[in-house]
Order: sequence, then structure tokens, then C-alpha cells
Amino acid sequence: MAKLQHTIDIIQSLDERAMAAARARQDNLTKPQGSLGRLEELSIKVAGIKGVDIPRIQHKAVITMAGDHGVAAEGVSAYPAEVTPQMVYNFLRGGAAINVLARHVGARVVVVDMGIAVDLEPHPELIVRKIGYGTKNMAKGPAMTRQEAIRAIETGIEIVEGEVARGLDIVATGDMGIGNTTPSSAIVAAITGESVANVTGRGTGLDDAQLKEKIATIERALTLNRPDPTDGLDVLAKLGGFEIGGLAGVILGAAANRVPVVIDGFISGAAALIATVLCPRVADYLIAAHNSVEIGHRAMLRRMRLVPLFDLNLRLGEGTGAALGISMVEAGVKVLAEMATFAEAGVSEASDKVDSALS
Amino acid sequence: MAKLQHTIDIIQSLDERAMAAARARQDNLTKPQGSLGRLEELSIKVAGIKGVDIPRIQHKAVITMAGDHGVAAEGVSAYPAEVTPQMVYNFLRGGAAINVLARHVGARVVVVDMGIAVDLEPHPELIVRKIGYGTKNMAKGPAMTRQEAIRAIETGIEIVEGEVARGLDIVATGDMGIGNTTPSSAIVAAITGESVANVTGRGTGLDDAQLKEKIATIERALTLNRPDPTDGLDVLAKLGGFEIGGLAGVILGAAANRVPVVIDGFISGAAALIATVLCPRVADYLIAAHNSVEIGHRAMLRRMRLVPLFDLNLRLGEGTGAALGISMVEAGVKVLAEMATFAEAGVSEASDKVDSALS
Repeated sequence: MAKLQHTIDIIQSLDERAMAAARARQDNLTKPQGSLGRLEELSIKVAGIKGVDIPRIQHKAVITMAGDHGVAAEGVSAYPAEVTPQMVYNFLRGGAAINVLARHVGARVVVVDMGIAVDLEPHPELIVRKIGYGTKNMAKGPAMTRQEAIRAIETGIEIVEGEVARGLDIVATGDMGIGNTTPSSAIVAAITGESVANVTGRGTGLDDAQLKEKIATIERALTLNRPDPTDGLDVLAKLGGFEIGGLAGVILGAAANRVPVVIDGFISGAAALIATVLCPRVADYLIAAHNSVEIGHRAMLRRMRLVPLFDLNLRLGEGTGAALGISMVEAGVKVLAEMATFAEAGVSEASDKVDSALS
Repeated sequence: MAKLQHTIDIIQSLDERAMAAARARQDNLTKPQGSLGRLEELSIKVAGIKGVDIPRIQHKAVITMAGDHGVAAEGVSAYPAEVTPQMVYNFLRGGAAINVLARHVGARVVVVDMGIAVDLEPHPELIVRKIGYGTKNMAKGPAMTRQEAIRAIETGIEIVEGEVARGLDIVATGDMGIGNTTPSSAIVAAITGESVANVTGRGTGLDDAQLKEKIATIERALTLNRPDPTDGLDVLAKLGGFEIGGLAGVILGAAANRVPVVIDGFISGAAALIATVLCPRVADYLIAAHNSVEIGHRAMLRRMRLVPLFDLNLRLGEGTGAALGISMVEAGVKVLAEMATFAEAGVSEASDKVDSALS
């Protein structure tokens, strides 16, 4: 708990001076003021996060955390739980969507076993930090103990600290865990107070009857466990999962190190919600990549006051949307750093600007 | 006219067989079917455009065409016309937004003077194909002759043919021309029948009174010239401009060579509208990058049945949004080419797929 508390304590507000300097520079680049819209905003936000007037992005990572979920026994996923380790092997061989998209944007993929139900074969690229062999079934009791929730988050902090030591200018979050839209829906319902039906979707492809059963399972879990919405650790412990806790730690640890975090879709959003309950300031460090197909995602983003960068009807997870988001943030940062100013380029400014300069 | 007609004649429908093969492959990659949403659709579209089951994107270009507009004399822009050549020099020195964003996505920038009002200093990277020294003022008569309109489009075709010869797997369109939102609004009003007020925005930053004057100028031009909305050459000739005609040619020439075209915002959209009036089939080759701040852009996209990939509140032009769009198309194409199939990765499929395979 000491590590978690220390991490929260050192997360600072954004650097207003650096943001003002970045904004002033954007206004002097050879384009009409504001004409690059959200690219400009992204560059100013990153300046504030890093505390640097003209930030650069060189080292990029997607941290994809995997875990299994006891609640999968309730039949909440179209896929069997054995897919979690199978997909992790796929990540390690470079054949999954996140590998392709991370390569596309020049980011490394960091794969962490936070609590897969089986032991995986050792692999030099696999980081094994199991909190347990899958969570317990939240429909029958708490998914994990409060102590395990703390360990999951602190493990995430340690993982991101290791990446900071290797060089990390921006990080994206990703997840893998059969059944993990179920705890994510439970978490958003618990924290925002939305009805379960309003925040529960079809995951990887449930039919109507299965969706109804999934909603009933989540409602049962909430009634049984009564998570305290003001206590992020309680929500995580009661509902799970280990990878969600790990990602909450990644988010907090990144913010403590002034690293911007691009959050992926629904499961990463659940982790971000828990992180913001633990430390509201952390929301300033978050960039929402995309609008997930999962309906509960909107309620998460509203709660965190985040507007996603794009909507491509993605619902895969793994960090795929966030990887594309990295590229957009980088585009904004490069505009700020690499464009010529009006003075440098010898370009005339808008007539009203010239007038006011002369008057 | 022979070149234009020949180009239109050889534009084919998309290759349905290649699209079916790409779709089948997407459905066998290690992810729930359809979970990568529009990235999957983009890959299938590019397969159909290229007529290749697993297309690759290696050579990328943004073609940015510049021209001046006689109608700028009516005070329709916040910037003086001298900014057109100044910004072209900025492109050639690599200091503009399009240079930064094209570098970011690994695309070359091809800069073409289609009709700037002055002669620029020679530069090895500048392609000078002037149709004239700026168009005539459409508020007082046709912006150009029908013959000039044909030459502008055929020049665009030749430019893209030259790029195809250098290697071109995808092309993005971009523009530079002080005042060019004015002919673009006139074009969308003429072709779609929307009222001028509904499709006219503030360009680089007009105030309310200037916007009102801009709308009145466009209405005057339409009343005076009476462009025939079913005749793309007539619309182009009456309203301009040279860079818009050139970009319409780029679009037609790319489609004739089975090269996908990522269109930028409002001015590129006007060029695409003219191209689709000349050859409706060309719409299949278009990918709309983003939703421009310019209000008339929506009407263009509706007319061409295109849904933009993102909305970042961009309103710069130059091809900036389209450059980012290239990266998204490439992401989809890489997913199709590089991801492992379920069989290759030894990953279990969804239970319903397994069931149907067994039954």
C-alpha cells in the first residue's frame, strides 16, 4: 500500500507554464490559428504532462496485460477461457492485431501475465507477475482480496516504472482476458451508478439471450458484493480483474512519471475509472483513443470528461485502438516541434493579426 | 478531352472476387469477426480497388496543388493572396503542416503550381503546370474557359500518372490557394442544390459580416454563371479553380490506375464532387479522411456516400487530414496482411463457429 499511496501523492497537476508556451508556439506556426484542431490540443496537453514547451515522442510502448476471470464460468463469453493463454502466445509470436498495429506506429509491446489461469511456457518477452490463477467468480463472492487488489495495482506501477527506465515518452494500455467485458461493465455500473443494462454489451459476440444472462450475472454480483463506489480498491477487489488492476497501476505510475497515457477501449476504460477514483488528478494524463462499440464505454468517457479521437467501430481490445491513438498524439507533437513559424517562413499573417500588431 | 475521356472510360468497378477473398481472410484472423470494424472494411476496399487479395502499401504520396482565385478580390479571405506562393515556398522547405504529417506517415509530398498568380522561383521539387495566373473572378463571369477546365483536369491526370510511374500504392489529395473555400462552397451548392448559406463557412477565419458578404458573393456568381450541375466541366469552368480541377484529375487518374485516393477536407471534397459528376464510379476509389470544420463538407460527403474516418476539428487543408488518413488505411491493410489466422496461431474460435464447423 505504501507504494500505491506514494505514487498517488507524487502525481502533479499539469504544467500550466509549458502549456501556455506550447499554445503560443502553435499560434505562431504557419497555419491559421486553431486550424489543426485537436492535433494542436494534443500537443499542448503533452507539453503540460511532460512539463516541456516543445515535447518529443521517441520511445513508445503498448502495455498489454492478461488475466482470467472466475465469472467466465457463468458463460458470459462466446470464447472458451483457454483462448487467453493462446492469444498471449500469439502476442509473443507477433501475430496478433496489437503486434501489427504497434509495429505500424513504432511502439514496443510489453506483454504481462497478471493472472492467467494456467502457467505459460517461459518466453523472453513474457513478463509473469501473476496475482493469482484467475480471479474468483464475482457472482459468488469477491473477485479477489483487498490485498490482492493492492498488489495488482502496485505491480502495474512497477511494470511502467521498468518501462520508464528503458525510455518511455508515451504509453498505451491494452488487455486480454476472456470474459473481461463482464467485470468492466460491473465496474462502470458500480462507479457511475448507471444501470447494468445501460453499460453491458455483447463483448466478443453474445446473442440476445446470452446478453440477458450476462446482465443478470453482473446484477447478482453487484447485489452480493456491494462495492463502495468511492473506494477504487473495494470496486477492484469485489469485481476484478487482475489485468484491470494492473492497468490501473500502469496509468497511475505513468502519471507519476509525467508520461501521457493513451487508453484503449472498454477494459482499459474500466482500469482508468478505478485509477481516477483513487486519484482524480490522473484524468489529466489520459487521452482516450477511440469510441468502443461496447455501449458502457461512453459512460466511462463521460465520467472522466474524455472525448475520444476517433470511432472506427473497434471492439477488440489488446490496445489496438490505443496504438493508433499514439500515432495521432505523435502527429500533434511533431506539428508543434517541426513546423515553421510565420517569421521563419516569411509568410504573411491574417489581416486582423497584422492590423492589431500595427495598432 | 481525349485523355480525360479515355481515363473515365478505363475506370473499372471494384474487384468483387478480391474483396470476397479479403473478407474471408479477415474472418479467419485471430480476433472476433468484425472486431476491427472500419480497419477491416478499409482493407477489403483496398483489395477491391487494387484487385489483389492481400494488398500492400509501400509507396505513398500526398499531391498538394496550389492555385489563386480571382474571387479573392472580393475580400472572401482573411489572408492576402501573396500567402499562396509564400506557403508553397514553405512546402518546398519542408516547414508546413503537410510536410510534417506526410513525413509522419512516410509519404512524399508532390507540390504542383496549377495556377498561382505569380511566377515562383524554380525549385527541383516544384512542378509548374500553370493553367493560368489565377482564375478570373467568378462573381463577374466564368472563372476559366471550358478548355482550361479540361486542361486542368488532364494535367492532374498526367501528374498522378507520373507518380504511378515512380511507384504509388495510395495517394492523398491536398490544396493551397487563398480564397479557395469560396469556389468550393459554390461547387457544392451548384452540384447538390443545397443553399449557399448551408454550405459556406468561415474559411481561415471570417467574422459574421465577412461571412455574409462571402455568401452574397457566391450567390451572385451562381446567378450570373448558371453552372449545369450535371456537367462537371461546366461547374469547374464557371466556378474554378485550377487546383480544384487538377485534383479532380488526380482522383480520376488514380482510379484509372487502381490506386486508392484519400481525400482531405473541403477543397479536395469539391474536386471529388466534380470527379464523381464526370464519372460516378470513381466514388468507389475514394476514402474520406476526416470531417472538416467547414460546414459544406458534410453535404459533399453525403452526396458521395462517404463516411469520414475521424473528426479532429481540422480546417487547414494542404492534405493534412488525408495524410493521417493514409496511416489508418495502411493500418487496415497491414492487419489483413500480417495477422496470424486462427489455424496458424493455434487459437480456438468462438463456440458458435466451432459448433457450426462440427455440425
